[in-house]
Amino acid sequence: MIVTVTPNPALDLTWRAERVVPGGSHRVDAALARAGGKGVNVARVAHAQGADVLAVTTAGGPVGEEFANELRGSGVPHRLVPVAAETRRSAAIVDEALGDTMIFNERGTSPSPAEWAALLDEVQAALPGAGVLVVSGSLPRGADPGLVLRLLSLASDRGVPAVVDVSGPAMLAAASAGAALLKPNRAELADATGLDDPFEGARELLRLGARRVLCSLGAEGLLLVRAGVAPLRARLPEPLAGNPTGAGDAAVAAAAVLLHDDPDVDDERLLVAAASWSAAAVLAPGAGEISPRHPELADRLLVDRPAGA
Amino acid sequence: MIVTVTPNPALDLTWRAERVVPGGSHRVDAALARAGGKGVNVARVAHAQGADVLAVTTAGGPVGEEFANELRGSGVPHRLVPVAAETRRSAAIVDEALGDTMIFNERGTSPSPAEWAALLDEVQAALPGAGVLVVSGSLPRGADPGLVLRLLSLASDRGVPAVVDVSGPAMLAAASAGAALLKPNRAELADATGLDDPFEGARELLRLGARRVLCSLGAEGLLLVRAGVAPLRARLPEPLAGNPTGAGDAAVAAAAVLLHDDPDVDDERLLVAAASWSAAAVLAPGAGEISPRHPELADRLLVDRPAGA
Repeated sequence: MIVTVTPNPALDLTWRAERVVPGGSHRVDAALARAGGKGVNVARVAHAQGADVLAVTTAGGPVGEEFANELRGSGVPHRLVPVAAETRRSAAIVDEALGDTMIFNERGTSPSPAEWAALLDEVQAALPGAGVLVVSGSLPRGADPGLVLRLLSLASDRGVPAVVDVSGPAMLAAASAGAALLKPNRAELADATGLDDPFEGARELLRLGARRVLCSLGAEGLLLVRAGVAPLRARLPEPLAGNPTGAGDAAVAAAAVLLHDDPDVDDERLLVAAASWSAAAVLAPGAGEISPRHPELADRLLVDRPAGA
Repeated sequence: MIVTVTPNPALDLTWRAERVVPGGSHRVDAALARAGGKGVNVARVAHAQGADVLAVTTAGGPVGEEFANELRGSGVPHRLVPVAAETRRSAAIVDEALGDTMIFNERGTSPSPAEWAALLDEVQAALPGAGVLVVSGSLPRGADPGLVLRLLSLASDRGVPAVVDVSGPAMLAAASAGAALLKPNRAELADATGLDDPFEGARELLRLGARRVLCSLGAEGLLLVRAGVAPLRARLPEPLAGNPTGAGDAAVAAAAVLLHDDPDVDDERLLVAAASWSAAAVLAPGAGEISPRHPELADRLLVDRPAGA
């Protein structure tokens, strides 16, 4: 089982406008409302690809009820810790003429220490059946960054590999705690390590204790960095048009599925799966789903050991 | 009592971004969530100005629960007819750098015939205590435009003057039913009557049977047209900076309050109240509220009988 933890879940609302006019008034169809947050998206993708998953997160207030209803309807197994603070929303506005999407992510309100403790208890209860723990997404404003470290300690006590997609100091803490894989994008990696070069940034995370770093470089592909071997990169020959929201979550889902099946999985297999699921997410309408075209995308990937590493 | 009917209520969500970047991702505070729809906004404004009001509308689904919770918290007296279809949302994105607002209005789902009948029953039950009936806002997609006519018949049977802010064929129907006041803006008036000139359009509504037409001309002010007298216009010497959302609802609230007190109210008094409340709504942060500066704005209004009428 893959257990995903989402410290800052959101009800993701997506509206599609024929053409967005700044300052204008638009008639639109009802929003697509979906339970989201990175760890929930990871669980959705892995579940849709046949993996046994459990999404652990929080829900509070009327927005939390909508979140819970939608998640129940999705069929993704989950445990929701009730919290007093209202679950946040995110708003995405798709401009159908331009094909681009504006996103407004609410920061989220931190649960109380007792509520965090209840979340940790849920994770601890699930870990005996887990092959991988995924910790993914931002922390709500005011949350203790030590939460990520406590989650990783629980996994480490049980010998469960952790796949982590968090930013800032929590990324460094996850590296120090020996995460099996960290998945920053280039900007997050530079921000957390203070090193602009992604190869240097990734090596800094390895030095701290991470086993692997999977760094997304946008249209330039995906980079896998591991100690003792030259970095490996996978990219498509041409950029994909589509919706990149959730592409990183699909890469994390692929990494979790492969590490669950074999914690010593071959680097190239892991990278190709992550890159093809990530590309397939760009072709899918929303975060948390991937196009069934991922095997074909995997065949088209160019894999190399990049210069400058 | 002023009874307002809102055929297509909405949970209005407002997010404020420091600067909106097309195609960008933004961190924002939690949305301001407010029960809205034009008739609800009219009731809010009239209630805040001390009028006895009752807002009648529908609520359905989890969004309807949020709508109901917020309305309860507001203290505005209301009756909500439960409906199966989910209450729609509207999304407003405020660009704080530019000071402008983009609005995305969901079209809304029509209640069933039985649910419309229940709404009419609520209105009928409230009319014996009513001095004015306000019918305000769009109809949900697929709704029978005859609903407005049936509402006006109920009011007319009781001798209750009707103030109506609807668009399209429903505006013509409301005129034919002898509405005491119609409140289109210039584009709605041209759209409904097929006449580009607002004076001609207003006179067409009077010819059909409306008693008064209050037409907003944006920065050029507000026009009051009544049979047998030259049109009267009120405007500020300079345009106001602010949020025009809800300015029309404030004008309707003023008209309802004055017609409630005196169905034969003097034209200039009615116009000045409507124009100053409308201007005061531009100075308030959101729809459904007006700035306490409305008396001062009333003093600054220029009232004339415009040329070209």
